[in-house]
Amino acid sequence: MSLPPDFDIAAVTARQIAGAVRSGALTALSVTERFLEQARNSQPRVEAFRHLDPESARRAARQVDAGSKGELAGVPLGIKDVFDTADMPTAHGSAVHAGHRPGRDAAAVHLARRAGAVVLGKTVTTEFAALSPGPTRNPHGPDHTPGGSSSGSAAALAVSACLLAFGTQTSGSTIRPAAFCGVVGLKVGPGVIDRTGVKALSESLDVVGIMARDAGDAALFAAVCARRPDWLTPAPAPARAALFLPDQSQGLPVEAACAERLARVARILGADTARQPAWWDGLGPAQDQVFAWEASAALAWERDCRADRVTPITRAFMQRQREMASPDAHARGLAMRDACLADLDALFGAADVLLTPAAPGEAPPGLGSTGSADYNVRWTLLGLPSLTLPVGLGPRGLPLGVQVVARRGREAQLLAHAAAMEGRLAAEGLGRPHPPGLVAT
Amino acid sequence: MSLPPDFDIAAVTARQIAGAVRSGALTALSVTERFLEQARNSQPRVEAFRHLDPESARRAARQVDAGSKGELAGVPLGIKDVFDTADMPTAHGSAVHAGHRPGRDAAAVHLARRAGAVVLGKTVTTEFAALSPGPTRNPHGPDHTPGGSSSGSAAALAVSACLLAFGTQTSGSTIRPAAFCGVVGLKVGPGVIDRTGVKALSESLDVVGIMARDAGDAALFAAVCARRPDWLTPAPAPARAALFLPDQSQGLPVEAACAERLARVARILGADTARQPAWWDGLGPAQDQVFAWEASAALAWERDCRADRVTPITRAFMQRQREMASPDAHARGLAMRDACLADLDALFGAADVLLTPAAPGEAPPGLGSTGSADYNVRWTLLGLPSLTLPVGLGPRGLPLGVQVVARRGREAQLLAHAAAMEGRLAAEGLGRPHPPGLVAT
Repeated sequence: MSLPPDFDIAAVTARQIAGAVRSGALTALSVTERFLEQARNSQPRVEAFRHLDPESARRAARQVDAGSKGELAGVPLGIKDVFDTADMPTAHGSAVHAGHRPGRDAAAVHLARRAGAVVLGKTVTTEFAALSPGPTRNPHGPDHTPGGSSSGSAAALAVSACLLAFGTQTSGSTIRPAAFCGVVGLKVGPGVIDRTGVKALSESLDVVGIMARDAGDAALFAAVCARRPDWLTPAPAPARAALFLPDQSQGLPVEAACAERLARVARILGADTARQPAWWDGLGPAQDQVFAWEASAALAWERDCRADRVTPITRAFMQRQREMASPDAHARGLAMRDACLADLDALFGAADVLLTPAAPGEAPPGLGSTGSADYNVRWTLLGLPSLTLPVGLGPRGLPLGVQVVARRGREAQLLAHAAAMEGRLAAEGLGRPHPPGLVAT
Repeated sequence: MSLPPDFDIAAVTARQIAGAVRSGALTALSVTERFLEQARNSQPRVEAFRHLDPESARRAARQVDAGSKGELAGVPLGIKDVFDTADMPTAHGSAVHAGHRPGRDAAAVHLARRAGAVVLGKTVTTEFAALSPGPTRNPHGPDHTPGGSSSGSAAALAVSACLLAFGTQTSGSTIRPAAFCGVVGLKVGPGVIDRTGVKALSESLDVVGIMARDAGDAALFAAVCARRPDWLTPAPAPARAALFLPDQSQGLPVEAACAERLARVARILGADTARQPAWWDGLGPAQDQVFAWEASAALAWERDCRADRVTPITRAFMQRQREMASPDAHARGLAMRDACLADLDALFGAADVLLTPAAPGEAPPGLGSTGSADYNVRWTLLGLPSLTLPVGLGPRGLPLGVQVVARRGREAQLLAHAAAMEGRLAAEGLGRPHPPGLVAT
């Protein structure tokens, strides 16, 4: 594949990079240098990286150039700092674990590296992937949150500091930051990508998040991490989509501009309208209860033994989870999940995918919170594959996302449908927005 | 509770120790010294510990003596070396991770310590809790395997080097060594005890194993680790038990002495006979496939990057798992599990619990293998709570175990039933055997 050495880092895809490196048109090292430079340049304004590691990245790139070249050959990758890495510290966004060296790669990190991805560094996460924000700013508006908890991964993609990045999601930690930063985020179903070596919050809810700049790159990255090359075979028939705008009796209301954008997307895609099933409202509190019971075990050591070293937000979060924690409410939450999964037809009807908000709207101002996960938590509890597509900017100049949700186990179809939708939306001027002034093209 | 300072370490229970420490009759430090001495004395012959840590144990005991005293106050605890510990190395039984310091306690370890348990050290595990044995010998016959992968935990309990111990189980890694060493092992259902900080093999199968010397201690320990104090409230009505001896068309046949012992136990307990459902045979291969797909991700880093530092048995295991790994077979295995769970009445009938072999028989001779998990893997895949009770010695002078299996979510009932059964069996001379010559009483 021909790609000039001065390729446009803001426009290039991971597929193009891997193709060019495999064909010998580019070296992994030259690609790495381009993105390392951009990562360094954007760091003062965006602070997407907790630990940028040029030496390790160059060493990895040289190995790719010297060896066999897999599906992600030479593709620059950012790793949320809750994934274990053999050659870089893994601090989980916390002073508690600062400088910790796990001595091995998380399974997903290893699979990406084995395919030739070049890890540039560890990206900023909220503390323990929970609520306490890191220093990252939204590339589209530095006084706005990038979303979280996968803040740095989303921001690094938006500023072209890497082409793929790992996130995680327990409530809305992949979909929300991807939407706020104008990139693609994919939340797979439970068990689809192995979590070995990833900081745990909730065994029932945690999933590895796939972050990229377009749906095609997300599909390639997801196929590698899920060990499912068959996901990349020809696309299914066009998706039957249905617009699902939940009523806003619970949680933050959807901003008018976001609802309008969603409606426009639905019109472009010829979508039907889905009806809200009776069980919808109960799912939010159910996710809360599942999370509280499980996180109050997963973080028990930090809460009981290191409370003095976490932020006040994390301390309050851990305390609240502990107070909420109830084994009976946890069991009821999981039972409700199972009952709703058995009644998904009530929500999907004849649709293959739902179109629904990725967040209440644009990224809110301020860096003290990463925003609301109200429009993510139910999909996470249900374990449905979901993907956010960037659909241009909102009235405040910040990105809007549309969340596409499929039934259980339909990751491959979701990815194929999303790629098709992305093309149709781009043709209507609804695509990935470029952050102003951050990428020298 | 009165317990003299020279209490019999071979007969004392964890409940008695905790009671005596809470009442001030004994100090945690004096208890710790007694068990540390026995751990040291038994180590040359049994090698149950990978890392015995007297200093850390004494420090913990002094903290218990100086502070609040929980449900496990002063109880000596052994930790399988696949659990993270903040103050001791965690090597996962492998040269690959020798000396690794995870910098935090696994959730279950923390919960036990918070309740006052005193960790004496890390016990021997097979490499990565898979097939390659460690150096531990069976206390009842030094030329026989102690079982595995939780080899050291089972042996340490048998020689009274501790009163509680952690194991894990993915196939039969808690039930089998407990049965071979003549102690109690409990495998809970998925999600019942948080796995944060435990080396992963298979997300769908791995569970924390509870190991003790009687059912009452197992119940106390399990209630702490599962955060379910309600499990210790009054017992249910006597269990309706049914004998389930699977036909032996697959796997190792059950030894005649083991089948006879099981039948005697069933007679004593007035058990019915359960019938083998049609789906039984398929569950074994299904567990194999679920394990292979998941372990080939969980161990991918070790397999691809550290193959030169693992044992030949582990190398062959990892290679075989990878060759077997199939996403379709994995999905079929999980679907089969779900279908069988929906048809459990076909197996249990009117019974509350099944009585079934914990292993094909006594521990086999030799230290090159930890024995067969043929009578464990199906219960693990189904996620049914199961507990092995020691029921005396077999013809070769090694312990026999009876596995008691309950329906999903019935851990509390299983523990209560097992305690009642244990009493009735002990009255008939079928109880926990003492290893010869290893405990000075």
